[in-house]
Amino acid sequence: MEYYSSEISKLIEAFASLPGIGRKSAQRLAFHVLNMPSERVDELAEILVNARKNIRYCKTCFTLTDTDTCPICANPARDHKTIMVVETVRDLAAYEKTGKYNGVYHVLHGAISPMLGIGPNDIKLKELMVRLQNEDIDEVIIATNSSLEGETTAMYISKLIKPTGIKVSRIASGVPVGGDLEYIDEITLLRALEGRTEI
Amino acid sequence: MEYYSSEISKLIEAFASLPGIGRKSAQRLAFHVLNMPSERVDELAEILVNARKNIRYCKTCFTLTDTDTCPICANPARDHKTIMVVETVRDLAAYEKTGKYNGVYHVLHGAISPMLGIGPNDIKLKELMVRLQNEDIDEVIIATNSSLEGETTAMYISKLIKPTGIKVSRIASGVPVGGDLEYIDEITLLRALEGRTEI
Repeated sequence: MEYYSSEISKLIEAFASLPGIGRKSAQRLAFHVLNMPSERVDELAEILVNARKNIRYCKTCFTLTDTDTCPICANPARDHKTIMVVETVRDLAAYEKTGKYNGVYHVLHGAISPMLGIGPNDIKLKELMVRLQNEDIDEVIIATNSSLEGETTAMYISKLIKPTGIKVSRIASGVPVGGDLEYIDEITLLRALEGRTEI
Repeated sequence: MEYYSSEISKLIEAFASLPGIGRKSAQRLAFHVLNMPSERVDELAEILVNARKNIRYCKTCFTLTDTDTCPICANPARDHKTIMVVETVRDLAAYEKTGKYNGVYHVLHGAISPMLGIGPNDIKLKELMVRLQNEDIDEVIIATNSSLEGETTAMYISKLIKPTGIKVSRIASGVPVGGDLEYIDEITLLRALEGRTEI
């Protein structure tokens, strides 16, 4: 592209390489950065580098954190006998936002997917089993996504844990609150029917 | 947010402060960066800082460039007697992409907007008038946006230049190519009608 100088082109390319950012957005972001005060850009660059450098897995639950043990695992007020198993750190954050879950977590960093060649050894499953052996756990709540991969993973984990005698549960699948039945897919509707509870 | 460690929160905030990036996208970008190889993050940070540091205005046309004179102004093959006046560097890039315009540009970096308190002195208009005095110019093509601000600016510039005897023109406003009349706003339809040409 002759019409942008090479530094600008590089900046646009850099933004366009991020997920969910197309060429137009990348251009907009690039010009935004070029109009920012120099110090703000330096600061932004520093935040990027520092975050990547200082972030590691919590040695207990494998969420991303900047300390050896994450704030949730380090919190004595939480119920350390209940573990919620999630696929990603964002899923953990989604449950934390509810403010109602008081147990701890285990982040798998993925789900079993034969299609993508992701097996049980490619996610933090061994690490979960080690925790179950070493810690005193009452219940494991499986909160993987309700996708094919999530369900496969949930089934696999439940089969693995059952023999240990620890209670295993799965979050309910059904019609989302405020959801309009007419717009909800058939599989979800059937799930909601199967999972019906007496009132 | 207790559920993200402070470094992650800072990274999410940093992304969310960019234009057009909401909280969800900022989270997605943050976790993408945390999963990138460390060297790639360093590189990204460097591109940001360098672009901001090395970019300046072309001393002739005020586009953003990393040299004193931009590649377009420095190109002897271009017609330096025709100046297209645009609001932003992105508008310049849009015309350059057509590959059919061979003149040079002048970037105003904004448009006159009494609503936002942007007057003629807040955009690179004086600089345009200086160019018209010092260079040998045949025509000034005003290619500001066809918005209220763009039209105001075009009118203002045209009144300013007319007395000098230099030809001033305005890009046509009308139905976009491939545009479906039924989905086009009334003002554009009226403009297209007013601007009709004999065939």
